[in-house]
Amino acid sequence: MVGIIMGSDSDLKVMQDAAAMLQYFNIEFELTVVSAHRTPLRMVEYASKAASRGLKVIIAGAGGAAHLPGMVAAITTLPVIGVPVKSSNSIDGWDSVLSILQMPNGVPVATVALNAAKNAGILAAQIIGTSNTEVADALIRYKEELNSSVEEKIRKLSADFPNGFDKGL
Amino acid sequence: MVGIIMGSDSDLKVMQDAAAMLQYFNIEFELTVVSAHRTPLRMVEYASKAASRGLKVIIAGAGGAAHLPGMVAAITTLPVIGVPVKSSNSIDGWDSVLSILQMPNGVPVATVALNAAKNAGILAAQIIGTSNTEVADALIRYKEELNSSVEEKIRKLSADFPNGFDKGL
Amino acid sequence: MVGIIMGSDSDLKVMQDAAAMLQYFNIEFELTVVSAHRTPLRMVEYASKAASRGLKVIIAGAGGAAHLPGMVAAITTLPVIGVPVKSSNSIDGWDSVLSILQMPNGVPVATVALNAAKNAGILAAQIIGTSNTEVADALIRYKEELNSSVEEKIRKLSADFPNGFDKGL
Amino acid sequence: MVGIIMGSDSDLKVMQDAAAMLQYFNIEFELTVVSAHRTPLRMVEYASKAASRGLKVIIAGAGGAAHLPGMVAAITTLPVIGVPVKSSNSIDGWDSVLSILQMPNGVPVATVALNAAKNAGILAAQIIGTSNTEVADALIRYKEELNSSVEEKIRKLSADFPNGFDKGL
Amino acid sequence: MVGIIMGSDSDLKVMQDAAAMLQYFNIEFELTVVSAHRTPLRMVEYASKAASRGLKVIIAGAGGAAHLPGMVAAITTLPVIGVPVKSSNSIDGWDSVLSILQMPNGVPVATVALNAAKNAGILAAQIIGTSNTEVADALIRYKEELNSSVEEKIRKLSADFPNGFDKGL
Amino acid sequence: MVGIIMGSDSDLKVMQDAAAMLQYFNIEFELTVVSAHRTPLRMVEYASKAASRGLKVIIAGAGGAAHLPGMVAAITTLPVIGVPVKSSNSIDGWDSVLSILQMPNGVPVATVALNAAKNAGILAAQIIGTSNTEVADALIRYKEELNSSVEEKIRKLSADFPNGFDKGL
Amino acid sequence: MVGIIMGSDSDLKVMQDAAAMLQYFNIEFELTVVSAHRTPLRMVEYASKAASRGLKVIIAGAGGAAHLPGMVAAITTLPVIGVPVKSSNSIDGWDSVLSILQMPNGVPVATVALNAAKNAGILAAQIIGTSNTEVADALIRYKEELNSSVEEKIRKLSADFPNGFDKGL
Amino acid sequence: MVGIIMGSDSDLKVMQDAAAMLQYFNIEFELTVVSAHRTPLRMVEYASKAASRGLKVIIAGAGGAAHLPGMVAAITTLPVIGVPVKSSNSIDGWDSVLSILQMPNGVPVATVALNAAKNAGILAAQIIGTSNTEVADALIRYKEELNSSVEEKIRKLSADFPNGFDKGL
Repeated sequence: MVGIIMGSDSDLKVMQDAAAMLQYFNIEFELTVVSAHRTPLRMVEYASKAASRGLKVIIAGAGGAAHLPGMVAAITTLPVIGVPVKSSNSIDGWDSVLSILQMPNGVPVATVALNAAKNAGILAAQIIGTSNTEVADALIRYKEELNSSVEEKIRKLSADFPNGFDKGL
Repeated sequence: MVGIIMGSDSDLKVMQDAAAMLQYFNIEFELTVVSAHRTPLRMVEYASKAASRGLKVIIAGAGGAAHLPGMVAAITTLPVIGVPVKSSNSIDGWDSVLSILQMPNGVPVATVALNAAKNAGILAAQIIGTSNTEVADALIRYKEELNSSVEEKIRKLSADFPNGFDKGL
Repeated sequence: MVGIIMGSDSDLKVMQDAAAMLQYFNIEFELTVVSAHRTPLRMVEYASKAASRGLKVIIAGAGGAAHLPGMVAAITTLPVIGVPVKSSNSIDGWDSVLSILQMPNGVPVATVALNAAKNAGILAAQIIGTSNTEVADALIRYKEELNSSVEEKIRKLSADFPNGFDKGL
Repeated sequence: MVGIIMGSDSDLKVMQDAAAMLQYFNIEFELTVVSAHRTPLRMVEYASKAASRGLKVIIAGAGGAAHLPGMVAAITTLPVIGVPVKSSNSIDGWDSVLSILQMPNGVPVATVALNAAKNAGILAAQIIGTSNTEVADALIRYKEELNSSVEEKIRKLSADFPNGFDKGL
Repeated sequence: MVGIIMGSDSDLKVMQDAAAMLQYFNIEFELTVVSAHRTPLRMVEYASKAASRGLKVIIAGAGGAAHLPGMVAAITTLPVIGVPVKSSNSIDGWDSVLSILQMPNGVPVATVALNAAKNAGILAAQIIGTSNTEVADALIRYKEELNSSVEEKIRKLSADFPNGFDKGL
Repeated sequence: MVGIIMGSDSDLKVMQDAAAMLQYFNIEFELTVVSAHRTPLRMVEYASKAASRGLKVIIAGAGGAAHLPGMVAAITTLPVIGVPVKSSNSIDGWDSVLSILQMPNGVPVATVALNAAKNAGILAAQIIGTSNTEVADALIRYKEELNSSVEEKIRKLSADFPNGFDKGL
Repeated sequence: MVGIIMGSDSDLKVMQDAAAMLQYFNIEFELTVVSAHRTPLRMVEYASKAASRGLKVIIAGAGGAAHLPGMVAAITTLPVIGVPVKSSNSIDGWDSVLSILQMPNGVPVATVALNAAKNAGILAAQIIGTSNTEVADALIRYKEELNSSVEEKIRKLSADFPNGFDKGL
Repeated sequence: MVGIIMGSDSDLKVMQDAAAMLQYFNIEFELTVVSAHRTPLRMVEYASKAASRGLKVIIAGAGGAAHLPGMVAAITTLPVIGVPVKSSNSIDGWDSVLSILQMPNGVPVATVALNAAKNAGILAAQIIGTSNTEVADALIRYKEELNSSVEEKIRKLSADFPNGFDKGL
C-alpha cells in the first residue's frame, strides 16, 4: 500500500499522475491532502501511523517552501518520495526543488523531477518490486512498452525522414 | 522573552549573534537546539507551548532544506523570524534562503538575510519595541550609534582622502 | 495602526492582499504609494514620521531593484515587513527578493515570499498580537480556520479517493 | 545486496559514506567504479545484470554532467538512488543536481542532496526495510539515535544557555 | 553524412532546423529518434555503428536531464554536437544546458545555445567544410547572406530613422 | 549627438524607448542596426568613426550572447551604454545581462536593467547634461515630473484608501 | 570633479581602484563613506548637494542589498555609476548586482561588473571626456596602452609558443 | 593546424591543456593571446586570415563577458570551439558560460564545459579526424586508454571493496 499525500488540493492535477501509475502496476494506494503548514498535527499523525497502518512507501508532493516530504521523512522510517510541485508564485520551481532535495544527513527524501509525479509512482513501484515479483515483472513489461512506444514513433518519422540505421526495422 | 532555536549546534556560531543583540537590548531570551528533522516531536512541543510559556517572538535558524522556521510558524501564532544559515553542503545558500522565505499563504516567516542572526535579534527587539518603550528607545539609540560609528570611519578616512562635503563635519 | 506602502500603484493588485488581511484582523491601516526612487523625500518623511504618527508596523512592497523596504527600515526603528513584488521586467523575481532580503547588519527587513502580501498582513497582525490579546486570539482562530478549510477539502477529495487514514474523520 | 557505483574513483571520498551506512544497517553491498562516459559498455552490462545478480537497489554517484544514475535507471528496473557529487569544475553543484534530478517521465532516479551519500545509504536501507523487518527495526533505532544525539547536544548547550523549555529534561 | 538524433519526437519542431540547414548546404543527413533513457540499447548501437556507417558528425538534441549527446559521445569518436532543448517541465532550460555542456574531461560535446538546432546544422557544415571545399565555399556565401540580410533591414530602418553613418550605403 | 544601435531589427520594439527619451530631452540621435555577429566589420567601422563623426555617447542593445556593447566599447573611447535585451531563446535574460555587464578591467560598459532602453536614453541625457545646461535643466524638470506623476496617483488612491500622512496634500 | 562614495569602509579595498584610475586621468575626485542604510540623511544631503558642489559624476559602490547607487540616482540628476561589491555574506554577488542593475524606468544607474571599480573610474573619465579634450585624448592613449600591454605579453608567450600569425611582429 | 587563442595570458594555465591534447594527437597548433576587448583589430585580423593561413579549427578561451569565441566565429567560417574560463571576478562561471554558449542563429560556437580546455583539444582532434584517418585512429586508441585507465582503478579499488561483478576481470 502506497500513501500519496500533497500539501494542497491544487496539487492534485500534478499528483494524480502518481495514482495513475500505481493503478497501472496494480498497487493499492490511498490519496489525500496533508498540509505541513496548515495541518501540522495531521501531518505528524499521518507520518507516525503510516508504517503501522501498512503503508510501505509515501509519495509526498508540495510547492514553494515545500516542507511536507522532509517532515514526513523526519517522523517515519518508511521511504518517502518527494515531488517538487511548481506552485503559482514559485521562483521557477527552484524553491520546491531545493526545499525537498537538500535534506540534512540522517533524513533522506527520494526526490524526483519538478512536477514528475508519474516518476514518483514508478519509483514507488520499483521499491515495492524489490520484494514483489509481480510488480517486478510488470516493471520489466513497462520498460518494454516505453521502448516500443519509441519504436512506433521512429517508424512514423521514417516516412518523412528515411534513414539508413533503421532500414531493417 | 524571545526563544532562539536552531536546527543543529553547528549553527551556534551564526546564531549567537542574535543572542548578543538581545542582550544589548536587555531582552530576556533562551537559546536551544530544536531540530525539525531529527527531533520533530520536540519541535511540535516547543512551538505548541511557546506562547503559553511566555515567549513573544521566536528566532529560528536552519540550513539546507531548512524546515524549522516554517514548521514552527505552522504551529504557533507568534511571529517567527527565520535565519537562513549557509550550511556546509549548501548550494551557495539558495536552499536555506528559499526553504525559509517561500512560505505559502497563511503561514508567514519573517526572513532575514543569509547568516544574518544579528538582524534577527534586532528585528525581535523591534517587535518587542512596538509595546515596550524602553526597548523602543534603545532602538533609537542603537540607530544613532550605527550612524555615529559611520561618522567615526568617515573622519578617519578623510585623513587620507580629504573631501569637500565633510569639511564642516 | 499599520502603514502599507508600495513603490508604484501597479503594485496595488498584489499589495491589497495585505490590506484585506488587516481588515480581517480588525487592525487599522492606511495604504498609499511611496516611491523610493521617484519620491525619495516623501519616503524619508514618511519613514521619519511613522512612529510619531502612531504606526506600529510598516509593510512595504516593491519590485525590481526594490529599495523601498530597506530605505524605510534605514530611517525608522519600527519593524518593516518587505514584500518582493515580481515586476514586469523582473528577472524571475530574483531582483526584488535579493534587494529586500539581503540587508546589511544593523538594519533588518522582515521579508516574506514573492508577491506574498497576504502573509505580510498576517505577520503584521502577529506583531500587533504580541501586545494585543484580541488580535492574538483572532490569530488562533485564523489558524483553526486554515486547518478547517483543509479538512473540508479532504472530505471532498475522499469521495473520489477513499483512504483509510481519514475513515474516522 | 546493494550496488554502489560511482563515475570516478575521485568520488570515493564522498561515496564511502553510503557504504558506511549500509555496514551500519548490516546490509550487504558491493562498491566499484562504473563510468558512463569512459566505460559505457561496462555501464550497460552492470545495469543489465544487476537484477539477475541479486542486487535490490543501486546507489550511483557522479559529478558534472552526471549521466550515470539516469543511464543505469534507463536499463534496469531496480530502484536507482542518485547522488549528485560536486566535482572540481562544477558550476556550484547545479550541473550534477540537475543532470540527475530532471529525468524524463518513465525513468525515475531517487535523487538525494548534493554530496549526500550518507542519505543514499539510509534510503537504500529504507527500501530494503520495506520487506525486511530486521532492517526496518534498525531504522527505527537509528532514528532514535539521531534524536538522542541531539538531546545530548541540548544538554551540553544548556550549561551555557539555560532555558525554561528543557528544565525538566 | 550527418546523423541527427533526438530524445523524443516532441523535439522535432526544434531539431528540424538542423535538417533545414544541412539541406541548405547540400549535406546528406538522416534524422531519427534515439532515446538514451527509453531505448538505451538502440542508443549504444547507433553510436557504435555511426562511424562505420559513414557518419562524419552527429547532432543530438535532448531536454531535461539530457543524456543523449554525452552518452553518444562516450561511445563514438565522431564529433558530437549537443542541442539543449527546453522541454515542457524544464527548469528554464538550465537542466538541459548543464547536462550537455558540463561533460567530464576526455569526452567533449560541442554544445550550442538553448534550442539552437539551426546553429548545430551550421556547425556540422563547418566541420564538414574543413575537408570539403564546396561546403567551405557555401559557408562563405552563407556568411555574406547573413550580412546582406542585415543590410536590407538597415535600409528599411533608415526610412524611419535616417542616420549619418549609412548615408553612403 | 547620440548613436543608438542594436543587434537586430527585432530589438527595435525595446530600443525605440531610448530614442523617445532623447527626443524628450531634445538631444539629436541616429538609430540603426549594427550586428556584432552578422556584420562585424560594420561594427568595427561604426565604432571607429563614432567619435570623429561627432557622437558623444553610444547606446547599444543586444540579446543572448550580447557582444555588441562590449565590442563597441573595445574600439571607441566614448561612453557606451549597454541595454540587455531579453531575446526569444534567452535563458530568462541572464545571458544578455551577464554578457554586457561582466566586462573585463579596462573596457567598461554602462549597463542598465533588462530591456531598460528608456533608462539608457535618460543616462545618455545625464552624460550630455554634464556639459550642457539646457539638458541638465531638462533633467531636473523630468525628475520633478516623475515626482508629480506619483503624487497624482497618490491623490487618486486616497479616494479608496484615505490615509493620515497625506491629509494635508 | 568626481564623487566616489561607498556604503562601508570595508568596500575601500575594492573602491580605491576607481580613485586610482581618476588619478591616472588627472581628474579631481573626492572619496568618502555614505551609507544608505546607516546614514540615510547624509546620503540624501550628499546627493542633493552633489551638483551644486560641482560634482559631474558620482561613483557609488555597495554590497548585499545595495541601495546606495540607486538612492543617490533617485535624488540627483547627475550620472551615477554603480559598482556591485561582493560583500562577505553575499549570495555569490547576485544580490549586489541585481540591487544596482535592475532600477525602474526613470532612474538609471550605470552599472559595471562585480567589484569593477577600476572600470567605474574609466567610465567616469569617458563621461568627463565627452566635454574635455584632454581627458578624451588621455583615454585614447590609455586604450593604446591596453593594446601595447597585450602585445608585450604576446611577445613573451611567443618564446614558448612560436606562432605563424605573429611572425612579423 | 589548430589555432589556440585566449583573451589574456592569465588564461594560459587553463588553455595549455588544449595544447597538450593536440600534441598527444600529433596535431600541429599555434597558441597566442588575442584579446577581443584590448586588441580588437588584432582579433579581426586573426579571424580574417585564419582560413587562408591554413587553420582548420580555432580554439578560443575567455572569461567574464567572454566575447572572443563568438566574435572570431562572426568573422571566420572555420569551426570555433569556445572554452569558458572561470576568471577571478566571475559570477561562478555563469558569465563566461552564457557569453560563449548563447550565440544567435547563424553564428555557432562549439562550447565545452567550464575550464575544459582539454576537451576543446579533443574536440578539435575529432573535427580533424573527420578527414584524417591517423587522427581518427588515434582517437579510438585514446578512448580505449580512457577505458583502460578506469579498469586500472577498478582493480585497485577491488582490493578494498571486493565485488561480484568484477570477479572475472
